[in-house]
Amino acid sequence: MRINQIQKIMQELDWLIVSNPKSIEYFSGDLYFCGERLLALAIPKEGKATLFINRMFPVNKKSDLDYVQFDDTEDSALILAQYLLEGKVGVDHEFPSGFLLRMTSANWKLKFSLASDLINRCRSIKDEVEQQYMRKSSLINDAVMAKVRGLLKVGVSEVQVQSQLASLFQSEDPEAVSYGGIIAFGANAADPHGVSGDRILREGQSIVIDMGCRYRGYCSDMTRTFFVGDDPMQDIYLTVLAANLAAIEAVKPGVRFCDIDKAARDVITAAGYGEYFTHRTGHGIGLEVHEPLDVSRSNQAIVEPGMCFSIEPGIYIPDKGGVRIEDLVLVTKDGCEVLNHYPKDDEVIL
Amino acid sequence: MRINQIQKIMQELDWLIVSNPKSIEYFSGDLYFCGERLLALAIPKEGKATLFINRMFPVNKKSDLDYVQFDDTEDSALILAQYLLEGKVGVDHEFPSGFLLRMTSANWKLKFSLASDLINRCRSIKDEVEQQYMRKSSLINDAVMAKVRGLLKVGVSEVQVQSQLASLFQSEDPEAVSYGGIIAFGANAADPHGVSGDRILREGQSIVIDMGCRYRGYCSDMTRTFFVGDDPMQDIYLTVLAANLAAIEAVKPGVRFCDIDKAARDVITAAGYGEYFTHRTGHGIGLEVHEPLDVSRSNQAIVEPGMCFSIEPGIYIPDKGGVRIEDLVLVTKDGCEVLNHYPKDDEVIL
Repeated sequence: MRINQIQKIMQELDWLIVSNPKSIEYFSGDLYFCGERLLALAIPKEGKATLFINRMFPVNKKSDLDYVQFDDTEDSALILAQYLLEGKVGVDHEFPSGFLLRMTSANWKLKFSLASDLINRCRSIKDEVEQQYMRKSSLINDAVMAKVRGLLKVGVSEVQVQSQLASLFQSEDPEAVSYGGIIAFGANAADPHGVSGDRILREGQSIVIDMGCRYRGYCSDMTRTFFVGDDPMQDIYLTVLAANLAAIEAVKPGVRFCDIDKAARDVITAAGYGEYFTHRTGHGIGLEVHEPLDVSRSNQAIVEPGMCFSIEPGIYIPDKGGVRIEDLVLVTKDGCEVLNHYPKDDEVIL
Repeated sequence: MRINQIQKIMQELDWLIVSNPKSIEYFSGDLYFCGERLLALAIPKEGKATLFINRMFPVNKKSDLDYVQFDDTEDSALILAQYLLEGKVGVDHEFPSGFLLRMTSANWKLKFSLASDLINRCRSIKDEVEQQYMRKSSLINDAVMAKVRGLLKVGVSEVQVQSQLASLFQSEDPEAVSYGGIIAFGANAADPHGVSGDRILREGQSIVIDMGCRYRGYCSDMTRTFFVGDDPMQDIYLTVLAANLAAIEAVKPGVRFCDIDKAARDVITAAGYGEYFTHRTGHGIGLEVHEPLDVSRSNQAIVEPGMCFSIEPGIYIPDKGGVRIEDLVLVTKDGCEVLNHYPKDDEVIL
């Protein structure tokens, strides 16, 4: 059981408080979303863990967990603080400060520290079942990218395409749930996190499609860039493609994440576009679209088999357009498996 | 400007750290989503506020704000802690503990406390422009409910209906963005937060449709319950409708939120279903679907003109089905305006 695994590496901590719903799903098998209400899995250094959850959410009780339920009239953070009693408590990054400050004021015998690293160490290595779900999720994403490509015609708006994503994923596989995506045309494609709006597709624009779905909880994430008419960014496209391939080539156990980032960044810098590659090369992915560890200049962590992350270099020319090419990779014994198969040719839409 | 308003009520605080993207939008006019990266608006007790944001997100710079930008290789929480220097710092509930703990360890001259109440006091009173957007958002939701009603036929699955929501909102109004919704049939309708799946609509089931959209950032949220064939829950439906109407009747400036909750709860309890009404009567709404203040037994806060919240009593019979009827209300000088107009008749689908 995954709780036993993390208990082995808790070392001097007496308790670990997990609040991220996806981390709770990872450890307990059950996904709960409680919005603004307290949700926490309290893992002791040995023995059974306890799920703290508001009584309004129906609970699928399991024999290997204890449960503490409360309602909206109760002070949930106080209940949690009193339960822990005393000791060293590690919390995850996402635990809301509102609850942490309440617990601190309610119980002075608790010493809090950040313990996200422990959780990340477990979640970043995907087991066999997780790997299968990751593969399937990306296969679905490949198929839907082809359908989205078919919607791209001069005159269509970003949100007209975006609003089709949910039903396209659904029709491709009834278990696939779209988590949305970025459909960005022209100058909007120059913003790596552009929000889709009512911009209309016109001649000479680049089109960035960044999308994915969840399959049994596991996320896909892929970006492709297309062009309308004569390709005004051919040189940039080929540079980003070369960076994408160089980074994928660099992925294998034992290298550092920063080395993979460097492989992509060097290609783009050598071509003279370094200042326009404004983000990290990739991010971990699994139950969440963005998970630690990231493929960035500052991450010296070592790549291990079973890790899964994105490789997504991009070049963004303000007010003109952008190019990004993103694939997911799964680290194998001696390299990596690329989970996306949709072509990366520079595709021109006429 | 809204920043000046909150500075007037900051009292003994030297700084207010706002991290919720929607609160930052409320105070600054600009919406940024930075995922796991630090995003914070630091409001001093007087003078200009400063936005802390990762350099990878394009910033719409304004003259009445200062900006501190950093990149992924920098320790963003340390930069924020050093900028604040010293003093009493109020943070919002959502500020991630990971950043708070980093700031605490980096700078011992900062004294942190929870300051969400100040932010909530501002955001809960909607001004004229906000009220217009709330009205329009609910009008769109009314129109889309009629379209969703048309999709409900024996044999359709929950996710087949759910996956149409994005395009239905989009076609109703190009500015309307669906935030998803609950489409729950039969036993799943007995879970107030049921997740839509591949359940097929059959004879004798209740159907709960709980959905909404954003219009210029402002949320709508409405629930209607339908039945297939002879209505097996007629008594329950009429009880929930009576509770919905009783609570709406109770809304006016000067009453407590708990009094409104009681108005709905008393109706349901008197009918013998008290134990099956497992949640609060409503929640605040605006830039977020769920905002403080909530309409619950424990909330003694006083209702004021300009507040906007949901009235959504429900009765849930485990393994059988559920009924919920939800409308948004906007508090006026002497009562309230109901923002939803879609009929609340018990509608039977044949």
